[in-house]
Amino acid sequence: FDLCFSRCFLCSRSMASKTPVGFIGLGNMGSPMAKNLLRHGYPVIATDVFPESCKELQDEGAQILDSPAEVADKADRIITMLPSSPNVIEVYTGPNGILKKVKKGTLLIDSSTIDPSVSKEMALAAEKMGAVFMDAPVSGGVGAASLAKLTFMVGGVEEEYTAAQELLTCMGANVVYCGQVGTGQAAKICNNMLLAIGMIGTAETMNLGIRLGLDPKLLAQILNMSSGRCWSSDSYNPVPGVMEGVPSGNNYQGGFGTTLMAKDLGLAQHTATNTKTPVPLGSLAHQIYRVMCARGYANKDFSSVFQFLREQEDEPEKKGD
Amino acid sequence: FDLCFSRCFLCSRSMASKTPVGFIGLGNMGSPMAKNLLRHGYPVIATDVFPESCKELQDEGAQILDSPAEVADKADRIITMLPSSPNVIEVYTGPNGILKKVKKGTLLIDSSTIDPSVSKEMALAAEKMGAVFMDAPVSGGVGAASLAKLTFMVGGVEEEYTAAQELLTCMGANVVYCGQVGTGQAAKICNNMLLAIGMIGTAETMNLGIRLGLDPKLLAQILNMSSGRCWSSDSYNPVPGVMEGVPSGNNYQGGFGTTLMAKDLGLAQHTATNTKTPVPLGSLAHQIYRVMCARGYANKDFSSVFQFLREQEDEPEKKGD
Amino acid sequence: FDLCFSRCFLCSRSMASKTPVGFIGLGNMGSPMAKNLLRHGYPVIATDVFPESCKELQDEGAQILDSPAEVADKADRIITMLPSSPNVIEVYTGPNGILKKVKKGTLLIDSSTIDPSVSKEMALAAEKMGAVFMDAPVSGGVGAASLAKLTFMVGGVEEEYTAAQELLTCMGANVVYCGQVGTGQAAKICNNMLLAIGMIGTAETMNLGIRLGLDPKLLAQILNMSSGRCWSSDSYNPVPGVMEGVPSGNNYQGGFGTTLMAKDLGLAQHTATNTKTPVPLGSLAHQIYRVMCARGYANKDFSSVFQFLREQEDEPEKKGD
Amino acid sequence: FDLCFSRCFLCSRSMASKTPVGFIGLGNMGSPMAKNLLRHGYPVIATDVFPESCKELQDEGAQILDSPAEVADKADRIITMLPSSPNVIEVYTGPNGILKKVKKGTLLIDSSTIDPSVSKEMALAAEKMGAVFMDAPVSGGVGAASLAKLTFMVGGVEEEYTAAQELLTCMGANVVYCGQVGTGQAAKICNNMLLAIGMIGTAETMNLGIRLGLDPKLLAQILNMSSGRCWSSDSYNPVPGVMEGVPSGNNYQGGFGTTLMAKDLGLAQHTATNTKTPVPLGSLAHQIYRVMCARGYANKDFSSVFQFLREQEDEPEKKGD
Repeated sequence: FDLCFSRCFLCSRSMASKTPVGFIGLGNMGSPMAKNLLRHGYPVIATDVFPESCKELQDEGAQILDSPAEVADKADRIITMLPSSPNVIEVYTGPNGILKKVKKGTLLIDSSTIDPSVSKEMALAAEKMGAVFMDAPVSGGVGAASLAKLTFMVGGVEEEYTAAQELLTCMGANVVYCGQVGTGQAAKICNNMLLAIGMIGTAETMNLGIRLGLDPKLLAQILNMSSGRCWSSDSYNPVPGVMEGVPSGNNYQGGFGTTLMAKDLGLAQHTATNTKTPVPLGSLAHQIYRVMCARGYANKDFSSVFQFLREQEDEPEKKGD
Repeated sequence: FDLCFSRCFLCSRSMASKTPVGFIGLGNMGSPMAKNLLRHGYPVIATDVFPESCKELQDEGAQILDSPAEVADKADRIITMLPSSPNVIEVYTGPNGILKKVKKGTLLIDSSTIDPSVSKEMALAAEKMGAVFMDAPVSGGVGAASLAKLTFMVGGVEEEYTAAQELLTCMGANVVYCGQVGTGQAAKICNNMLLAIGMIGTAETMNLGIRLGLDPKLLAQILNMSSGRCWSSDSYNPVPGVMEGVPSGNNYQGGFGTTLMAKDLGLAQHTATNTKTPVPLGSLAHQIYRVMCARGYANKDFSSVFQFLREQEDEPEKKGD
Repeated sequence: FDLCFSRCFLCSRSMASKTPVGFIGLGNMGSPMAKNLLRHGYPVIATDVFPESCKELQDEGAQILDSPAEVADKADRIITMLPSSPNVIEVYTGPNGILKKVKKGTLLIDSSTIDPSVSKEMALAAEKMGAVFMDAPVSGGVGAASLAKLTFMVGGVEEEYTAAQELLTCMGANVVYCGQVGTGQAAKICNNMLLAIGMIGTAETMNLGIRLGLDPKLLAQILNMSSGRCWSSDSYNPVPGVMEGVPSGNNYQGGFGTTLMAKDLGLAQHTATNTKTPVPLGSLAHQIYRVMCARGYANKDFSSVFQFLREQEDEPEKKGD
Repeated sequence: FDLCFSRCFLCSRSMASKTPVGFIGLGNMGSPMAKNLLRHGYPVIATDVFPESCKELQDEGAQILDSPAEVADKADRIITMLPSSPNVIEVYTGPNGILKKVKKGTLLIDSSTIDPSVSKEMALAAEKMGAVFMDAPVSGGVGAASLAKLTFMVGGVEEEYTAAQELLTCMGANVVYCGQVGTGQAAKICNNMLLAIGMIGTAETMNLGIRLGLDPKLLAQILNMSSGRCWSSDSYNPVPGVMEGVPSGNNYQGGFGTTLMAKDLGLAQHTATNTKTPVPLGSLAHQIYRVMCARGYANKDFSSVFQFLREQEDEPEKKGD
């Protein structure tokens, strides 16, 4: 497997080769992604269950149709961006789903984050209709979606990867081929599980160090030059005042919400259970974010776990028992 | 607090200023550390409870005395490198301990990894005798000890830090001032707790990814360019074949043993309990390494947690239930 | 909801009212359950994917047919006992499934232990065909199955409960009505999660007490008269020598296997994730049994967790560090 | 070891044999305990660091002295009831401590809940002075203390047990001999660890069952007749409305506070670390109560963990994702 990092050089292809691209799912992520396709000169044929989302894309130049099936009838490359497995199953295999009218040879790219076994199911169903399905979940959030700086982790038949790349590089800065269908989901789920573990670990460690008398900035510097180093400590530190430009410095607003992280960890746990893989820390990370959702942290950035572990009242370092 | 990274430029000072340095504790770490002091031209006056360790240093030119008290009588700078808190308490405050004969103004540097509250106790006791105590635990292991590439995390009164640096830079590549007495221990304990969490998290994540069909090298690459990145995944990967020059490629021999990691995590848990700090992942990491010690992994490198979580028999990726 | 504990008084009904009962799934549990129905005078019409299992029941007097659909064609009360959700989905809704030929008014009782949301799906599908579906998972194991001493936890419409009871009391000593469809599964999953937590907790506690110098029998007595008391400590103690007649006294053979417990805990975790319920201890219990499956304990009784947590070599109580 | 359950038949002994009993530590527990000794006709010679506590006992007829040493000078049976290890070390071995003036043959009974290794230290120190030390921590709380219904778990030399019993049966309903010094602490710590695990497990299980549609009372009944049964589910259920006369029915007031449970779990973790015993669930239970202390539950009964795991807003059963 070659690791491939591309820029959007394909924009220089003549407009004539830019046939319409279908886009289903125009939410927080799908909407800016579809807009970036439009900006790169692709006609977009879209649909969404919410009329307001459709209106917004229509104003930007997209053609709006009434159902996934109708979109499949008019476009031979379709991108879907949906909240969860049931939505994907409905949009692809439901009564008005893509596969009802999909044309032979259509390329289907699903950028939802779902259970890889559902991706494999959809791929099989698509294959029966002569279409090709690839999973290409994203990393980066709504900010990266707007700036076309997403990372796509792609799974599917290698021969179709180039065609997928052409479209994905209009919406992202990194496109990575991961293997067969489902491995894109696997890569994303794995990354987010390790991220969650690293973030909670960093929050616990920073909190302990502060309680033991260490200055937070100094502790972060020491960790970041030592074997404790991780992305959460050196690029997204959860302690207010240690770094600028991260949610901990903005009362944990924005960023990647606790609810979303809990959802991804639920997926990781689900795949782990199905493959009989022990994931003790990943499992506990899932539970911690689940409790945080119940305790008022649902809409805060996931680095707010530092705040969750601290005393509610402003307390300096604690002494012993 | 200034962060200071020094090289051993002090070697150029004339031999006349290199008064004898005491060294107590000539084990796996203390022995190569003492030898590096000798190599830098410092006369070394040493002692250890094991005669064989003493003999080895004697052959290298050190003067061997019978007890910590006798060493304290002859040297006004003393380094100690002992296995645990009880040893430190004995060597400093025992019947034949350092403080029985220590001279006013002596600089005491303890490089053992122990409970920071014990370091503070020793500092108070030393202060009563007019001596100065600093904690300076190390990171890097026996290899780094031999090569004089250790990292020292130093706690104590800032005025004495320069004097400590002079000696420590003969044995290490990084010397960091962390704050008051006990913060050197705190920094080390914190780093190792986050390291353990990162290593177990990486092992779980790599195992899950492999079970879901990802190639290990590719998965590691993806993690290392994404938010899941950490030292354990990019510099010490626990999966055989992903990186060279790490214990996973050598049947987990050498490196940093599971027993030692369990010990450090016990210290972290102890300080967390004493300061009422919640450390759920750190706590579970401690338990996992504790179980591994009981199940035959005591002497393997701590990255062997990957092996521990895998099926005992060679099994390809597992299917669902 | 009335709690109902019945004995098999219905055996006195005349043979004329004992119409054939269908039985699908003749494994370790289904086979003795079907035999008990036969013993109570019910003609049994059965099928299973394994011919040997069918042969055994045939020898006992059951009529064997080729598929679930054929059984549905001949019996208006059917019991299913299958390993997992995919099997249940196939047997009920597959090409040769029950619902292909089920007659209006048929009572369908599924005693498999599966995801309650799958039970609800099957109930809806059955309802469309005019049949009634109830979930009635069991507790008690193969021993209780043979002795007709199982506990059934039943979910479904209350009006059908009496009819279900008639059959279930031939196979069990306790039949409990839990509520709507899916609540039988819920009750079983909940009980087994709490059981697993209690067993691991008991094993940890007994091990710690022994290490601290307590005699195991005395410790068990103290726990059992105090607030630490639970079924695992007073009726199934995991420490060899504390109680007789339990697997810990027989090298952990027999009983309720680690693999089965891990499976049930996976179901508990799955339902918890789907309902956004935090289950930190249940989650960790699942991980512990999952690791035990990977480390050679798959076929031992689930109380072997005590052995798993102990040193591999025979070690007396450990001293401190 | 005989298990001994005694009533206070010794009250019939003539007043002449009731020599003064020393009592050090007159807090929430010590005060009612000392009063019960007075009620049984024992002259009490007491001290405490807080004058108000002393005044209260004085009004009840106790003689108040100024320090532990003075009490030791006047009484040859002394009971101590102190918050933690440092207090015990101070009261016994401090400058004005018991051992400064203790008379040969004095019986010292410490009912504090502390690290068993500290109990052993005190026993050795007492032995050097010719006195006998026993650990006898209690279970039951302030209510049981007032009603003389405490449970005492006693460790020490068996010959002295009868003498200890004489006094303890005036304050408690159960007195149990556990073994050598330290085993009383061990028994209590073990019981409370298993209790915590059972309580959190019950809270998770009840919460999950309710989310899956089960009526709480019915679920509790099912658990209590099945293998999930434990003291927390059948005698102290954490769900409001399931049982009467328990803190869950009184907004979690009274009872056994979260802070106290966290303290006991810290002790359990400490002894587990020192004996290299893996306690994964006990460790996580400790962390959960530690987080609860930080999140406003410090003064609620420990069964409030049910409330902690629930959604903050009043939410009926949750549906799936």
